Amino acid sequence: MTDNKIMNIAKKRGFLWSSFEIYSGSAGFFDYGPLGAILKNNIIEKWRDCFITREGFYEIESPTIMPEEALKASGHVDHFTDPMTECKDCMEVYRADHIIEGAIDKEVEGLEDQRLTEILSENQIRCPKCGGHLTHVWSYNLMFQTLIGTKGKKTGYMRPETAQGIFIPFKRLLRFFRGKLPFGVVQIGKAYRNEISPRQGVIRLREFTQAEAEIFVAPSMKNHPKFANFADDTLRLFSAENQLNKSGSKKTNAGKAVKDGTISSEILTYQLCLAARFLNDIGIPSDVIRFRQHLPTEMAHYAIDCWDVEVETDRFGWIEIIGIADRTDFDLKSHSIHSKEDLSVFIEYDEPRSITTLGVKPDMKKFGPSFKGAAPKILAAINDLDVSDIQTAFNKDGVFKLELEGNFYELSPDIISFEKHEEIIRGEKVIPHVIEPSYGIDRIIYSVLLHSYIENEDRTYLKLEKQIAPIGISVFPLVNKDDLVEIAHSIRDEFRNQGIIAEYDGSGTIGRRYARADEIGVPFAVTVDHETLENQTVTIRNRDDLKQVRVPIKDIYSVLINLINGRLEFENI
Amino acid sequence: MTDNKIMNIAKKRGFLWSSFEIYSGSAGFFDYGPLGAILKNNIIEKWRDCFITREGFYEIESPTIMPEEALKASGHVDHFTDPMTECKDCMEVYRADHIIEGAIDKEVEGLEDQRLTEILSENQIRCPKCGGHLTHVWSYNLMFQTLIGTKGKKTGYMRPETAQGIFIPFKRLLRFFRGKLPFGVVQIGKAYRNEISPRQGVIRLREFTQAEAEIFVAPSMKNHPKFANFADDTLRLFSAENQLNKSGSKKTNAGKAVKDGTISSEILTYQLCLAARFLNDIGIPSDVIRFRQHLPTEMAHYAIDCWDVEVETDRFGWIEIIGIADRTDFDLKSHSIHSKEDLSVFIEYDEPRSITTLGVKPDMKKFGPSFKGAAPKILAAINDLDVSDIQTAFNKDGVFKLELEGNFYELSPDIISFEKHEEIIRGEKVIPHVIEPSYGIDRIIYSVLLHSYIENEDRTYLKLEKQIAPIGISVFPLVNKDDLVEIAHSIRDEFRNQGIIAEYDGSGTIGRRYARADEIGVPFAVTVDHETLENQTVTIRNRDDLKQVRVPIKDIYSVLINLINGRLEFENI
Repeated sequence: MTDNKIMNIAKKRGFLWSSFEIYSGSAGFFDYGPLGAILKNNIIEKWRDCFITREGFYEIESPTIMPEEALKASGHVDHFTDPMTECKDCMEVYRADHIIEGAIDKEVEGLEDQRLTEILSENQIRCPKCGGHLTHVWSYNLMFQTLIGTKGKKTGYMRPETAQGIFIPFKRLLRFFRGKLPFGVVQIGKAYRNEISPRQGVIRLREFTQAEAEIFVAPSMKNHPKFANFADDTLRLFSAENQLNKSGSKKTNAGKAVKDGTISSEILTYQLCLAARFLNDIGIPSDVIRFRQHLPTEMAHYAIDCWDVEVETDRFGWIEIIGIADRTDFDLKSHSIHSKEDLSVFIEYDEPRSITTLGVKPDMKKFGPSFKGAAPKILAAINDLDVSDIQTAFNKDGVFKLELEGNFYELSPDIISFEKHEEIIRGEKVIPHVIEPSYGIDRIIYSVLLHSYIENEDRTYLKLEKQIAPIGISVFPLVNKDDLVEIAHSIRDEFRNQGIIAEYDGSGTIGRRYARADEIGVPFAVTVDHETLENQTVTIRNRDDLKQVRVPIKDIYSVLINLINGRLEFENI
Repeated sequence: MTDNKIMNIAKKRGFLWSSFEIYSGSAGFFDYGPLGAILKNNIIEKWRDCFITREGFYEIESPTIMPEEALKASGHVDHFTDPMTECKDCMEVYRADHIIEGAIDKEVEGLEDQRLTEILSENQIRCPKCGGHLTHVWSYNLMFQTLIGTKGKKTGYMRPETAQGIFIPFKRLLRFFRGKLPFGVVQIGKAYRNEISPRQGVIRLREFTQAEAEIFVAPSMKNHPKFANFADDTLRLFSAENQLNKSGSKKTNAGKAVKDGTISSEILTYQLCLAARFLNDIGIPSDVIRFRQHLPTEMAHYAIDCWDVEVETDRFGWIEIIGIADRTDFDLKSHSIHSKEDLSVFIEYDEPRSITTLGVKPDMKKFGPSFKGAAPKILAAINDLDVSDIQTAFNKDGVFKLELEGNFYELSPDIISFEKHEEIIRGEKVIPHVIEPSYGIDRIIYSVLLHSYIENEDRTYLKLEKQIAPIGISVFPLVNKDDLVEIAHSIRDEFRNQGIIAEYDGSGTIGRRYARADEIGVPFAVTVDHETLENQTVTIRNRDDLKQVRVPIKDIYSVLINLINGRLEFENI
């Protein structure tokens, strides 16, 4: 299994390993080792280049600890739960849905605890470990809880997603963007889920890294000005309909998917295309990518359309690595209600609109004499009334009876008439809708490693994209003679001065050095040999096709920097 | 006060603001807004360039949640505390040391709780709010606590420093570095301190970002191969001695500070110099930086020499922004004891050493007959003894008496003689010492903003270093005419295609646009005017001296990228 092979390399060569190993580990936690951390940083930099530099979104960074009020508003205190059951005999705990899916191969995601309990019972499902009876299913909150401060301690939680940190300061963000929609804000950082029993390595972590974008749009403006650039992209869609009628995923054209309504909007489709291109750029090929739409039963409470970007793996099948959802106005509305802050945006119309409204016009000459001292109060009261209520009463009863502090006053058409007002409306207030692409960075890194692993009859290597490979260049002396070693060291140092991570390796045979560089995906190797001493040239070896070219030392810096940045192809050196 | 001015700009223009404002905030938590997050990323990238690309260290990333065992071993469960006292009347809680320092201007950091209680009482210090009596002082642990998992829940904490995540996988790191010292490993990430009452804005946060390097060295090798590059650097040192004799800080030469023993080692001094250069590079000038040595009373339990890099501020005085410590073998030794793992390193000698040891040689012909059945036990016992004890007894008493399971056996020189063994030792096992520079990223960002603020009679601007300014280039049309606007947009887009964050601004007068760009420290502005339509040139304006040059549009991309990267000076365009 490629999973085993790649996780072995990952552990042995310093990409990834289980955390706290000397303390017997702690399930659901992983360290990124020396090569893994650079790989991760490089992928995040690519993501920033895509979303910030090119799409024009801005990043923010909010705390990972959040006070309870904020997560009450977002729904996480009440709904961020997994259904749990426990064996009455051996006391082992399980996710009820996982146990059911394992026992009877039935999709039960999203069902109520009560229904899951019934399914367990109807199918006589027992503890997989000891065969004991299972308890009723209950909801278990997945947030890590803590306390903030010393006095009058406040409950806090480790954030379950980075998104909430963007919604909360929405007013400040809106001001930064000068009050205008649409705009996009991203956050990259840790999120936490206290999983019941994480047993899938780096796929199910209790602490993981998300890169999320929240794109705020007017509810009626879900088109995208640059969609034309993507309309011809091919997407492999596994729509809710295809899942329900078991017809499998289908390749389609992005423009067509919008037109026929498979995907609910242009802006959501734009994000699907962007995700596919991003994954291709970092080395995950299209043939292992599909887009799976959420079934109505599994869709989050806040979304109206949601697509998982899935990647095929040999160990876990199709795994979700990105989620792309239309969250509507759910979050801003909730935070607005809970915080009592106005989180709406004033949207100016293209053209001001003229609106006619009906107002009440009291006949002041009759008003005073009729109501005496009560007149001012009555006047104030009728201004607050709905004009149509008065009209209806006039039509029905000929008179409108006003109750005020226990007294009744009769208003007749000779005291009150109506007048039309013309009003110019420049726009309206709306709560923006939110389009959210949410990238699971750890799973993306796993997928990159998995699909970079190449095993030929003669060698094994990681075909990491040149720009994300942790080490850009290996520098070797052909043999360990002082003069060759010295030149190799100085080449390594000069690459580092120019901002490229290069490593020297002088251990073992030259063949062994190439193999070590291949195993961690170093795209280029520079070898210093005897000819170097004669004519100041070195060889550059290309990892993917093993071709070598000889280049003067003075040129290798610009040549290799251009090769790594993709501005030069190896065959054109 | 510059602090007020810069924090106003920070909040208004999107650098920094208090988190969770719509929920009335939560003390000790800050958001980085759209400009702050880029500034932070740019500073971290500079740090990575310095420590990873140039110094050759490697980064790792470990979880922010840590199980209790690991933090028990590090000493944080027992010692990561602040002394606390509470008012018996109004129930307000305080840090006892802060209250004392505020009341009687006495330095009490590091004193025992008992002593602090005495000082409170001796000086009749009362509650600053209501004048009530204060309780005895107790130690309050500053870690945020949580629970990991559902069953048999394990206590966990949010990590108090990133360093521990590097010590724990030391064996894997040692293997990555092929078993050889010295090597350096860094971590950049969140750390947490549940402060008793954080009231100093971004200076005292409950969640903050550290960038720490742990440099593992053989205990006897605290020199640095590249120290010569730094030996002539000037450092402003405020040594423990200068603090105790109140003689103030003194400028000295790095090489001299090592020679006269002011700083305990070359490698520690190297890190002081590196810190000074890094701070200069990101725009904090030397005249607001000093290095303050920890007093013996305040030094952490794990350190033998520790220097704070301090920056002068108008609101908080001198604040620590970096700590540079020699942590010795404290951490690895503790983790080794608690985890029962061997965390030592085999250090090979330059030359194998020959060692002569003395062994015991029993005369077997006499041994059996003398001791009969007890002979094997006695033989085993004398092999475990210290040879010199037997020699001493022979010299003193002529005989060695061995007690074994309650019986005494007399060993005389005719039964036991001695023989010399020659042994070749190739090296020895040592627990490495650790040199730790620990950078407080949030305080560094505050210092950068503070010392970038320039207020002239005619304008206010942020003199941010070109490479760390959040927005590299502003693009304006001189007036908002369609043809000029279109060119300005296309220039903005092309900069973004080339990886530079450029912004278009078409709002207000051109003067107002320059002022807005100045306020957030945009180093260069490109203006499209009527001449542009005639000859395809634009003006580039230099923020710092207001000079302008006219450059053909086709050249501005390379010109500005070189200006930002420091490869070209404005006067040489």
